[in-house]
Amino acid sequence: MPVLVPPTISFLTDYGLTDEFVGVVKGVIRQLAPEALVIDISHDVAPHDVRAGSLTLVRAVQYLPDGVILAVVDPGVGTARRAIAVEAGDDGMVFVGPDNGLLAPAVAILGGARRAVELSNTDLHLMAPGPTFAGRDLFAPVAAHLANGVPITDVGHEIDPAGLMPGMLPLSQAEDGQVTGEVLWVDRFGNAQLNIDPADIADLGDTVSLRFGTTHRTARRADAYGAIRGGEIGLVVDSYGLVSVCLDRRSASVELGLHAGMAVTLAAPSDDSSPGSTPTRVVTPVQLGPRRAD
Amino acid sequence: MPVLVPPTISFLTDYGLTDEFVGVVKGVIRQLAPEALVIDISHDVAPHDVRAGSLTLVRAVQYLPDGVILAVVDPGVGTARRAIAVEAGDDGMVFVGPDNGLLAPAVAILGGARRAVELSNTDLHLMAPGPTFAGRDLFAPVAAHLANGVPITDVGHEIDPAGLMPGMLPLSQAEDGQVTGEVLWVDRFGNAQLNIDPADIADLGDTVSLRFGTTHRTARRADAYGAIRGGEIGLVVDSYGLVSVCLDRRSASVELGLHAGMAVTLAAPSDDSSPGSTPTRVVTPVQLGPRRAD
Amino acid sequence: MPVLVPPTISFLTDYGLTDEFVGVVKGVIRQLAPEALVIDISHDVAPHDVRAGSLTLVRAVQYLPDGVILAVVDPGVGTARRAIAVEAGDDGMVFVGPDNGLLAPAVAILGGARRAVELSNTDLHLMAPGPTFAGRDLFAPVAAHLANGVPITDVGHEIDPAGLMPGMLPLSQAEDGQVTGEVLWVDRFGNAQLNIDPADIADLGDTVSLRFGTTHRTARRADAYGAIRGGEIGLVVDSYGLVSVCLDRRSASVELGLHAGMAVTLAAPSDDSSPGSTPTRVVTPVQLGPRRAD
Repeated sequence: MPVLVPPTISFLTDYGLTDEFVGVVKGVIRQLAPEALVIDISHDVAPHDVRAGSLTLVRAVQYLPDGVILAVVDPGVGTARRAIAVEAGDDGMVFVGPDNGLLAPAVAILGGARRAVELSNTDLHLMAPGPTFAGRDLFAPVAAHLANGVPITDVGHEIDPAGLMPGMLPLSQAEDGQVTGEVLWVDRFGNAQLNIDPADIADLGDTVSLRFGTTHRTARRADAYGAIRGGEIGLVVDSYGLVSVCLDRRSASVELGLHAGMAVTLAAPSDDSSPGSTPTRVVTPVQLGPRRAD
Repeated sequence: MPVLVPPTISFLTDYGLTDEFVGVVKGVIRQLAPEALVIDISHDVAPHDVRAGSLTLVRAVQYLPDGVILAVVDPGVGTARRAIAVEAGDDGMVFVGPDNGLLAPAVAILGGARRAVELSNTDLHLMAPGPTFAGRDLFAPVAAHLANGVPITDVGHEIDPAGLMPGMLPLSQAEDGQVTGEVLWVDRFGNAQLNIDPADIADLGDTVSLRFGTTHRTARRADAYGAIRGGEIGLVVDSYGLVSVCLDRRSASVELGLHAGMAVTLAAPSDDSSPGSTPTRVVTPVQLGPRRAD
Repeated sequence: MPVLVPPTISFLTDYGLTDEFVGVVKGVIRQLAPEALVIDISHDVAPHDVRAGSLTLVRAVQYLPDGVILAVVDPGVGTARRAIAVEAGDDGMVFVGPDNGLLAPAVAILGGARRAVELSNTDLHLMAPGPTFAGRDLFAPVAAHLANGVPITDVGHEIDPAGLMPGMLPLSQAEDGQVTGEVLWVDRFGNAQLNIDPADIADLGDTVSLRFGTTHRTARRADAYGAIRGGEIGLVVDSYGLVSVCLDRRSASVELGLHAGMAVTLAAPSDDSSPGSTPTRVVTPVQLGPRRAD
C-alpha cells in the first residue's frame, strides 16, 4: 500500500526542552523511520502530571493528522505498568505510550479503542543500560515501526481494551439552577477553562455569579477576550467549546487565584441559596473500550 | 508551475510551548499542506506584546526562505481587527496574520506591501466552537493553502495596503553631539540592542557616556563580547548592525537595569551639557504601502 | 553518490527559544540545504556553559543519525577561538562548532577525530554587519554545505586534531572502599546523574552512604524511580548507564540540594573512616586525536 504523504508522528511528553530527551527520541525515530514527520504537541506537561498530559492530548487530538500519536508521561517507567499501543478512530490513529490513563480521554473521544496490544515484541526495542528512558528505548522505536506501516499486531500481543487504565475526567454537575465544575486547564494567557458546556449555563443570563474557594465574584459573558470590559471578569466560550474564565489581556488565573483542579460554581446572580458553600469536584472514569453500536 | 523545493511556512506567535497551540496549528497545516516545512521563528513572544513580536519578525525576516510567514500575536482575536494576508518582497513572500501592526516592520523592510487582502473567504477556514483561536481556525488553513500555491486573491478580497495598521518603531535622535535612542530588545544573553546605528555615534570616540533613567556610566566600543575588558561596559555592533550595550559573559540587562523600551543616550564622555536629563523616546509609524519608485 | 534519505543536521545551542536565533539558523539552512532535516537536541544549554553543552552532546550523540552535528555554545564568538569542523566515527559524522571543548567529549566517544579543518573558506559564510552571530553567519552555512555533500576539505584548511581544545570531563575516584565522583547533570525531573559507573559501587551492597558538602544520608539501590520507597533516596542506573541519585516523583536536586558540579562520595554504610571529609573533584582532559590502533 503506497503512501503518498509521509507518515506523521505527533509527540507529547513531560520531558521539557532543556534536556536532550526530545532530541534523542527524534534521533531514534529518524534512523528507523526517516520519512516520518514529527509534530511536537507539547513537551512541557508538568513532570509526572498524567492528568494534565491527558487533557492536553484530548484537546489536540482532533486537529492532528492520521498516523501515530506518541505520548509519554510515565512516572511508573520501569515498573509493572504496561507499555501499550492502541488503535482508535475511523482512520486508524495509533496511540503509543504507557497504560496509565494518559491516552484514555483521547482514545475515548475518537470513539474508543478498536484494538490494543502490549508492547511485548522486544526485538523492536533498543538495548539500554537502564530502564528509565522508555521513550527512547521502547516507545520511540515502536512508534517509528508503526509509522513505517508495521501492523500493530507485530509490536506486541493483543490485550482487552476494556482492561486498560481509564482516564479520570471531572464531570460538571447541574443542580438547583447552578452548575459546579472544575478548572481543567489554565492556558498561557491565564484563561481558566472549565469543564462546563455553554449549554449548561444557557439559562443563567448574561451576568453570572462565580464562586470558587472562598471567592465570590460576578462574571459577564463575552464573545471574545477583547469584548470583556475593563475590570470585568469574562466568561468566554473557548476554542474547544467550553466555558472559560478570562480577563482582557491579563491573566485570570493570576489575578483571581484560579488553578487547575479547583472547583468552580456558576449560578444566576440572584442565587443566594447557598452562600459560602464550597464547590466540590466530581470525577468519573473514561472507559477505553469501543463504543457500543446499539 | 512545479516547485522543486517544498514550500516553507515560517511561524511566529506568543502561544508559548507549554500548551498544545503550536502543535495543533502544525497539525492543521500538515493536513492541508502535507509537503510544507514549518520553521519556528519564536513562540515565546510575551503574551499580547505586538511590538516585541514585530521586532522579532523584522530581525528574522531577511534570513527566512521565500514562502509564507505566519505570525500571530493577536490580543484582539475575535473582535473587529482584520485578518490579512500581505504580499511583499521581490520573491513573493506572503505574510498572514492580524492587522494590528505585527507584520508592518517586516513588510516595510522588504519594500512595502505589493498587495493585501482581508481573509474573507471563509470557505477556507475551520469551523470552530469559539472565536478565540484564529491561529488554528483561520490563519493556519489560509497559510497552508497559500503554501500550496493558492493565489492570494483566492483567500480574501483585496484591500488598500495604505490602510493597514502601521507598526510603531522608535526613532533615534541625534542632537548637540549626543544620540538618544531606546532599548529595542534584550536578548537571552542580556545584551541590550539599541535603535542606534554605528554611524550615528561614529564621532563620539572609543569611550562613550551612557545615560538611562538616573544612571550615568561609561561604555567602551568593542568588536566582540569577548573583547570587552572585565568590569567594563561594551558597545558592540550586533549581528543586525545596531549598537548594543553588553557585558562579557554576563547580562547587561540584569546588571545595569536595562529593559526593552527604556530610553538611552550616548554622548562623548566630556559632554556634561545636560547632566541628569532623562532621555525620552521618539516613535514613528512605519507605513505599509509600497515604496515609491521615484 | 545518491543519498536516499535526506541528510540530517542535529542542532544544539545555548540560544534559548525566546529569541529568533534558532529560527534564523534554520532559515539559513533551509535556503542552502532545502532537503536537510534539522533535529533540535537542545537550545536551552545555560548561556555560555560549554561544559553543560558538551555533556548534553555526549549523552545525545550515540542516538543521533549520521550526518552533521551543529553545536554552538560560544562565549568567545568573534575572538581568536577557531571555528572548526571535525570528522569522527565510522560513518562520517561531522561536527561543526567552535574549538572551545564543546565538541570534544562527543568526538572522543565516537573514537576521536579522524580529520579536522578550520572554517577558513569564507566564501561559504554570510556577510554580516557584526561578528556576534557566528551560528547564523558561519556555522549554519557550513553545516548546510556539508549536509549537501560538500567535502570537509572544501570548507576550510586541515588542522591537527591533536591541537584541538580538549573537553574537561570529571573522573570518579575509588579509594579505601569508597567512590568519589561529581554531579554531571541534573535532569528535568531532578535526578542527579553522577560520573560513577555501577561497577564502581558493586561491592558496596544495597544500602549506600551518600555524602556531599556537609550532608550525610543513606541511599538505597533501586531498579526504577517507581521502585524507590517513599521517603527513601534511590540510586538508579540511569538511561546512560551511570549511577544517579533520585527520589520517586520528586526532585532529588531540589530536596537534597544537589547541583551540577558538586562532589559526591558513595561508601558502604558502615564506613565511618572519614566522617565529615568533604569530597573533592578530579578533572581530566579528553583528547581529541584519533585513538591509536595498537
